[in-house]
Amino acid sequence: MAEVKLFGVWASAFSKRIEMALKLKGVEYEFIEEDLKNKSPLLLKYNPVHKKIPVLVHNGKPIAESLVILEYIDETWEGPAILPKDPHERAQAHFWAKFLDEKCLPAILKACKSTGEEREKAKEEVIELLGFLDNEIKGKKFFGGDNIGLVDIAGNFIGYWLGIITKLVGIEIVTEERFPNFCRWINEYNNCSFVKENLPPKDKLIAFLKPRFEVLNTSK
Amino acid sequence: MAEVKLFGVWASAFSKRIEMALKLKGVEYEFIEEDLKNKSPLLLKYNPVHKKIPVLVHNGKPIAESLVILEYIDETWEGPAILPKDPHERAQAHFWAKFLDEKCLPAILKACKSTGEEREKAKEEVIELLGFLDNEIKGKKFFGGDNIGLVDIAGNFIGYWLGIITKLVGIEIVTEERFPNFCRWINEYNNCSFVKENLPPKDKLIAFLKPRFEVLNTSK
Repeated sequence: MAEVKLFGVWASAFSKRIEMALKLKGVEYEFIEEDLKNKSPLLLKYNPVHKKIPVLVHNGKPIAESLVILEYIDETWEGPAILPKDPHERAQAHFWAKFLDEKCLPAILKACKSTGEEREKAKEEVIELLGFLDNEIKGKKFFGGDNIGLVDIAGNFIGYWLGIITKLVGIEIVTEERFPNFCRWINEYNNCSFVKENLPPKDKLIAFLKPRFEVLNTSK
Repeated sequence: MAEVKLFGVWASAFSKRIEMALKLKGVEYEFIEEDLKNKSPLLLKYNPVHKKIPVLVHNGKPIAESLVILEYIDETWEGPAILPKDPHERAQAHFWAKFLDEKCLPAILKACKSTGEEREKAKEEVIELLGFLDNEIKGKKFFGGDNIGLVDIAGNFIGYWLGIITKLVGIEIVTEERFPNFCRWINEYNNCSFVKENLPPKDKLIAFLKPRFEVLNTSK
């Protein structure tokens, strides 16, 4: 039987992407919780370039970078498709997943970690970026269509973590007025039984994120 | 017949990636040269998110982001493979292409655009990053194996542009002593007849890059 190990952190949206994909495909795996302040020699051996979680190890071979791993999982195991088969639809999924990681996440982190005018500017940028997603999800249940796909899985951060973090940090970004379609997706996503079962419990996640993000709240 | 249009800039390594892939597959296309100081309404329509070249338009449908386009081309047209078929090898190709764009290119630009101590620090980072590539290419003709693949095509910037730009800027990064394997690849790459035919002529490229990069030379 194939041996699958995942080096991750339970509270990380990036780790959770991989867990969600493995569960979607019905793949059994061993989860190895990493301490990011004291990374294991195995993690450093398997991901010497970035030294980051998540790392998937399948039959002894490591794969790093969550979007790369998601595609690997889709190509390796049967089960519900993560990426569409049609090349143009696949390209669109790749485009939006890349957009999430390379544009939205850095802008969100900047908005959280900055203060004053810089924070306002970063917040405006996040609002502009999420506007593109609001438009993209219009008229669709999930980014993947009727079922969750690559962009929904990669979007767990904006679907679940973002709401918690912005509240802790004291900034308001996602509102019904601004993003009606995106809010409907967040609702659909968080109430989808598969997603619900596989996201970390809200209380536990808030307790984990609180000391890390509440200090960034400048509105108090 | 399929209609293929490419919005690009002749001197851009990102545009050239797409031209190389289309030529590898034997796909006929119309090249539309963009003026980046005065982008065409069509480019802005086709890539409203990033407003950047390259954009490939196939049968009226646009695809943006060069790595996304390269994968689309590989999946859409017959001919020499750009990505390996084996999922683990594919994942490795994805990993290194992502590494080039997300780690190497920003570090190289930082080393070029900064001065003094900041430049030295950025240069050290580039050297560290290229060390990973030097190790990766050890014992192989191309990153793609015996033939050029995704990483070689995406690597055109470090294979061709980097040498010109660092010379103009007045920094020394790639040396035989530091990177024997990487230098061998650069040599192999630039002398591969397919690559040679499809890169912009050196004189013309230097003339184009000179006013943009020579001003950043602080060693004079």
